[in-house]
Amino acid sequence: MIPIICIVGASNSGKTTFLEKLIPALAERGYRVGTIKHDAHGFEMDHEGKDTWRHRRAGAQTIAISSPTQVASIRMTDRELGLDELVPRYFWQEDIVITEGYKRSAYPKIEVFRSVIEPKPICETKDNLLALVTDDPVAIDAPAYSFEQVSAVADLIESRFLKERKKHRVLVTLDGKKLPMNDFVQDFFVGGIHGMLSSLRGWKDVHKIDIHISMEDV
Amino acid sequence: MIPIICIVGASNSGKTTFLEKLIPALAERGYRVGTIKHDAHGFEMDHEGKDTWRHRRAGAQTIAISSPTQVASIRMTDRELGLDELVPRYFWQEDIVITEGYKRSAYPKIEVFRSVIEPKPICETKDNLLALVTDDPVAIDAPAYSFEQVSAVADLIESRFLKERKKHRVLVTLDGKKLPMNDFVQDFFVGGIHGMLSSLRGWKDVHKIDIHISMEDV
Repeated sequence: MIPIICIVGASNSGKTTFLEKLIPALAERGYRVGTIKHDAHGFEMDHEGKDTWRHRRAGAQTIAISSPTQVASIRMTDRELGLDELVPRYFWQEDIVITEGYKRSAYPKIEVFRSVIEPKPICETKDNLLALVTDDPVAIDAPAYSFEQVSAVADLIESRFLKERKKHRVLVTLDGKKLPMNDFVQDFFVGGIHGMLSSLRGWKDVHKIDIHISMEDV
Repeated sequence: MIPIICIVGASNSGKTTFLEKLIPALAERGYRVGTIKHDAHGFEMDHEGKDTWRHRRAGAQTIAISSPTQVASIRMTDRELGLDELVPRYFWQEDIVITEGYKRSAYPKIEVFRSVIEPKPICETKDNLLALVTDDPVAIDAPAYSFEQVSAVADLIESRFLKERKKHRVLVTLDGKKLPMNDFVQDFFVGGIHGMLSSLRGWKDVHKIDIHISMEDV
């Protein structure tokens, strides 16, 4: 799976502002960055009266709009989707996904902290806290970076999550739930699929294989 | 793959208005409907100043926002994605996808036609024209429905595309391009994957299998 890092912190601590510096710092190094904003309250992405807005109001469950330069989509859900579900679905060309929020997730976190906003960080080291971004002294066992040290934070992310790439990566989800596979099983499984597909007409030199199967009464 | 039907017609012929009736007619029958709007000119989905808008301006390639009731995403692309790429990526829970536009696609089409807008339909029968929705007399070899006959159009779609479901359906894309597989190969391939995965811990009674593989130097 694509590496996921969560930028967390209290409201108004400066998460978005820090992300606005971190995203280009990673993009300049050649990485394709995706982001996920956690929204607890509901949001309004579309514009009233637009065709997509009218599709949705008429009862479409998922609406997409596609142009030569971008694709947007809105999906109605009956529950909040987790990062394990969102990332493989929405991010297939990115090298890393950085979230704004998701402080309760198990993924590595960088907390943006300002003591004028909150008396102490919302994370503890045990919360998979990778680093703090703060200009205040904090008694926490995690490396601290100032708000200006964007490049150093990008170094940390690069060395921990982006340098080591596997020869091939496989993600299998069963009814949306990730199937755990160790390295041996991954290699075996990829080898099997590669063997089956590469004997078919239509196979060429392939980099990404995506397979979607709906089983009914098998 | 999920069935795809394209609602086509000249600008201002009434495509969106007809879709606003057709979507609930299908939804009332228990089908989950997805829609895709074709946009030739570029669109602005997000609202200036919002966090997601700031992520994008900072250089994120794909941005998602997730709440308990909906997920939205915006992806930057370097070319226009085809329906073959959009549908498997964005629509995984829908029973049917109806597009607004895509008159050049090979998918079955329903043309919305009004002679006050355009002298004659933009489709011919050879363009995989399933039906016309029009109140005008038209000399074309395709069934014509009035703008009020929404239920009859829903009947047509249901009988042609929604009643007959395969036991299992498999879609394989290689670098985003669909790999053609006949029924025998599909059965063989699904059987092979089912056999490999069902022997692993983590397999239960599964309805959907999604597999994403990035091959590097295999």
